[in-house]
Amino acid sequence: MDLNTIKDPSFLKEYSNEDLEKLAASVRNFLIEKLSVTGGHLGANLGVVELTLALHKLYDSPKDKILFDVGHQSYIHKILTGRTDQFDTLRQYQGLCGFPKRCESEHDVWETGHSSTSLSAAMGMAIARDLKGEDHSILPIIGDGALTGGMALEALNHIGDEKKNVTVILNDNEMSIAQNVGALHNVLGRMRSARKYHWVKDEMEWVLKRIPAVGGKLANAAERLKDSMKYFMLPGMFFEELGFTYYGPVDGHSFEDLMENLQYAKKTEGPVIVHVMTQKGKGYHPAENDQKDKWHGVGPYKIESGEKIKPTDAPPAWSEVISEALRKKARTDHRIAAITPAMILGSKLEKFGEEFPDRLFDVGIAEQHATTVSAGLATQGMKPFLSIYSTFMQRGYDQLVHDVCRQNLNVTFGIDRAGLVGADGETHQGVFDIAFLRHLPNMTIMMPKDENEGQHMVNTAFEYNDGPIALRYPRGNGLGVEMDEQLKTLPIGSWEVLQEGADVAILTFGTTIPMALKASEVLKKQGVSVKVVNARFIKPMDEAMLHDLMKQSMPLLTIEEAVLKGGFGSGVLEFAEENQYYNQVIHRMGVPDRFIEHGSVKELYKEIGLTSDNIVSKIKKILPEQQQRA
Amino acid sequence: MDLNTIKDPSFLKEYSNEDLEKLAASVRNFLIEKLSVTGGHLGANLGVVELTLALHKLYDSPKDKILFDVGHQSYIHKILTGRTDQFDTLRQYQGLCGFPKRCESEHDVWETGHSSTSLSAAMGMAIARDLKGEDHSILPIIGDGALTGGMALEALNHIGDEKKNVTVILNDNEMSIAQNVGALHNVLGRMRSARKYHWVKDEMEWVLKRIPAVGGKLANAAERLKDSMKYFMLPGMFFEELGFTYYGPVDGHSFEDLMENLQYAKKTEGPVIVHVMTQKGKGYHPAENDQKDKWHGVGPYKIESGEKIKPTDAPPAWSEVISEALRKKARTDHRIAAITPAMILGSKLEKFGEEFPDRLFDVGIAEQHATTVSAGLATQGMKPFLSIYSTFMQRGYDQLVHDVCRQNLNVTFGIDRAGLVGADGETHQGVFDIAFLRHLPNMTIMMPKDENEGQHMVNTAFEYNDGPIALRYPRGNGLGVEMDEQLKTLPIGSWEVLQEGADVAILTFGTTIPMALKASEVLKKQGVSVKVVNARFIKPMDEAMLHDLMKQSMPLLTIEEAVLKGGFGSGVLEFAEENQYYNQVIHRMGVPDRFIEHGSVKELYKEIGLTSDNIVSKIKKILPEQQQRA
Repeated sequence: MDLNTIKDPSFLKEYSNEDLEKLAASVRNFLIEKLSVTGGHLGANLGVVELTLALHKLYDSPKDKILFDVGHQSYIHKILTGRTDQFDTLRQYQGLCGFPKRCESEHDVWETGHSSTSLSAAMGMAIARDLKGEDHSILPIIGDGALTGGMALEALNHIGDEKKNVTVILNDNEMSIAQNVGALHNVLGRMRSARKYHWVKDEMEWVLKRIPAVGGKLANAAERLKDSMKYFMLPGMFFEELGFTYYGPVDGHSFEDLMENLQYAKKTEGPVIVHVMTQKGKGYHPAENDQKDKWHGVGPYKIESGEKIKPTDAPPAWSEVISEALRKKARTDHRIAAITPAMILGSKLEKFGEEFPDRLFDVGIAEQHATTVSAGLATQGMKPFLSIYSTFMQRGYDQLVHDVCRQNLNVTFGIDRAGLVGADGETHQGVFDIAFLRHLPNMTIMMPKDENEGQHMVNTAFEYNDGPIALRYPRGNGLGVEMDEQLKTLPIGSWEVLQEGADVAILTFGTTIPMALKASEVLKKQGVSVKVVNARFIKPMDEAMLHDLMKQSMPLLTIEEAVLKGGFGSGVLEFAEENQYYNQVIHRMGVPDRFIEHGSVKELYKEIGLTSDNIVSKIKKILPEQQQRA
Repeated sequence: MDLNTIKDPSFLKEYSNEDLEKLAASVRNFLIEKLSVTGGHLGANLGVVELTLALHKLYDSPKDKILFDVGHQSYIHKILTGRTDQFDTLRQYQGLCGFPKRCESEHDVWETGHSSTSLSAAMGMAIARDLKGEDHSILPIIGDGALTGGMALEALNHIGDEKKNVTVILNDNEMSIAQNVGALHNVLGRMRSARKYHWVKDEMEWVLKRIPAVGGKLANAAERLKDSMKYFMLPGMFFEELGFTYYGPVDGHSFEDLMENLQYAKKTEGPVIVHVMTQKGKGYHPAENDQKDKWHGVGPYKIESGEKIKPTDAPPAWSEVISEALRKKARTDHRIAAITPAMILGSKLEKFGEEFPDRLFDVGIAEQHATTVSAGLATQGMKPFLSIYSTFMQRGYDQLVHDVCRQNLNVTFGIDRAGLVGADGETHQGVFDIAFLRHLPNMTIMMPKDENEGQHMVNTAFEYNDGPIALRYPRGNGLGVEMDEQLKTLPIGSWEVLQEGADVAILTFGTTIPMALKASEVLKKQGVSVKVVNARFIKPMDEAMLHDLMKQSMPLLTIEEAVLKGGFGSGVLEFAEENQYYNQVIHRMGVPDRFIEHGSVKELYKEIGLTSDNIVSKIKKILPEQQQRA
């Protein structure tokens, strides 16, 4: 069928399994083709083609609520709910979002991006349904990796106890973003290899009836066996213990198996888990045998060969630069250990792990635990490096406050993907970290101007022994600068003048430095002399330099790729207040007080006014103000 | 023995069980007596007397690491490590801390206060030990309530998978802070009622050997029975599944039972859980049968009767005021449901629960889940009220960003214990919330000047339909003002002039209003006319009033009982910058950039300079500055 003609999933009701199989093939072809141009989360979506079709056939969305945990596997759902024609704009500026989005469709009942939220949301919806006296199904679809996130386990605990009608679809592809970790993963492994729950249960019942009824010890034990029938280590044991009825393991690529088990689940009262085995990349050969999960989130590729179409000769990725510096440093500093919450690949830690297999710890999707494990290491004189995306550091905020900063422990935070991240959009923008780190006592925050300074900052972090230190770096590639052989130690709180100037000073750091320099070039031609400062320490600031600038009443413009409220610029305002520089002109540029959707970083810069043109016009506005005051 | 003579726990090595029992009795008497004067966490400590003595006898602290989860149960540990003479100053200003504190003793290896951190810390310590090639035990002591916190479950998952030598002491008193909830609690319940693990295991083995060896189906099943021996629903099944060796349930008040099981545990390789059954309040009759956990954290009491010594005629507690207003509102607004993370008692929600048993949800110690359950409810048109302490809201920060604010859902956050909390000290100060809420898009934040305004704010929150709203209120009692019968709706973002004045304006809210008014009285006598503004909306601010004040160039003083960095005062600085009020004199008072330890709130105010005297001198300093500029 022409997928473009699909308006909603109701047509599926009439479909036979054979029809569904044909549709599944069309959907796969569509995704492989479209994503070869736009990029996107190919592997995860190819894994849930049959599952998504089966759910939409058996249930009535949006009356029944289908929630996608993480949400990057919602493409088939988007096709079935009338958005096929928008796939050319997938993850592009003002185009189709790569995650569920409530404003896109009434079928998107819950927005995601971060992991492990769907069970809690489902529980909230179940409470609402029951209080309102409504009757419908609630179906969170959660991966085996997302299930190890603490809040998912909190939710399991609550749902199981309250006995709410919630049907959890456990989408088990034996890897989360990459190879899965954790004891729960081993539990699932045993379930996978076991036979079907209800079948084994029947068989056991049959055996137990035949145990000879003798007296004494044997009889007691046999009784216990019968009583505790349900407690056998049948596949779903672990979940049954928590109050769920378990169905599975189900072949997630067989409509027959899916339909049978989902129908059972639909008839079952109380919390249910349907354990569905899927294969990431199913049906596209290059993505199918992808042990390293290189097909998780991809850019454009050649369909036939699976070859990735990459920009030629790009400078090294920031994650690569930082993890290489870490590896170099770890050779001489044996206190260093690296912690990652399921991001070995994204954070480019493979080589570190090859060289130091005993010193790399992937703790799974568990940012809270990752933060406090690092704190525990630091209490014993180790020097942990927690490699974590800015947006995921949000989940360790209390651990930052209570465990790391309060105990003033030497943990280095490699805050990856700081700033705007582009196509992943509003759930993943790393724009809050300065605002949530800057008010933490004992915290030091820095961001390098280029990858050479980046490696020196890695060194600086490990040479520093007075508490936690956060090293922010952006998504994407470095500038391609030359790298020093020798690692340097930067004085904590020191800024660097990149360009002298007399009329106005720009204080900025990281990714916004090039646009500041460009603006100063333009202004120079117009006779305005701009000082550009690399404010590489966001906390503590270079107070000597600030005093110097403010004593001269030099007008200041702060620029940051982070939220303005409570950000770096606010720190400069606070400094002026604390030191009573009342006449000081200060302007701030940064991310406004709203969520920023997906698009290329360049487009987003333009949207929020972070461009060299804007810097030029802002400075032209500042100057007369200052002149009026002089 | 005289407990004051104890310098370290080494003397316990020579103690017989009989000696230990005598010591336990002395320790209990000491605690009951001391805490009757100072107050403190009596119930929890009486429950772990034997357990703490047994651990310190069998292990060698500080070589072996004993970590107290939450930490309010560390008093016996403090006695055994030479701090008996400091108990007169318990939880008092510059006195003994109510939680473990690394600066107090080398035996305090991990600081706590918040729940569920000890397993992650223990894992960090275990990694460090193994990398350093050391050999010692690591013993986190965690309650059954704390175990339901997501990060504890993340840690269990990681420890079980990595097979590290960590001995988890599960201190199961069948209640966390109050009655426990959750499916895991039911799991523990089944373990409690089961017989000893190893005994049942032997018995089962005996039975299985006697199953007749017949062919076909029966033989297969019998084989499976044998193979899956360890998977029987024996008490520790759940933990064994996760890779732990389980010992228990152990009678936590029998030295014999404790010693036997701890000795087994000590000899066992890999992760171990020792499931110890204890009774909160053990040995002090009034605290023993305390179903409602009124003896969790107590003030002074009469030893004989257990009668609490309370200040007479105190105004109602803030928690009471807010939950009463909630109850009133819920009678007419059926969309309201209340969520609490294990704080029904602390948040005074008992009456709400009695009147609306179907609309109160205690989700256990699970702040992340609590936040997102609320979000899920709001997607379905409900009006959830999440009642949560400021310091615990920290743990739901990512859920605030990603689930609530990003989706702009109508969740009301009752931020209890906002500001300084006194005796609980630095782990519990509610001073970060403004800084971590203010930069969240779509968030509204308010704080009432008195309990009458508090009830109107509850009403305002539910009448507001444009996104999340946080209502902060302090620990302790209201001012005793008269309460209006009719609930009012305050215009969002509206401030209130409490006192007119011409020379300077104070912008403040909540608890700091009385000191501002007092200061203005003093200044009035000195001829200074102070305007006092109730800046009850922290976000959005009253922009009309700010424009008005700044157009007059009125010098401003902001005062807040919260961190200065990124706080309310910074918001006023940001407003002046955004609107180019360059000549505006603004000063800020608030909590400095360091952690604030325990003490009475009054003493802490003095320490950080939040007093009416300081306001007076600050304003005297501002005025000449302004006059110079006029």
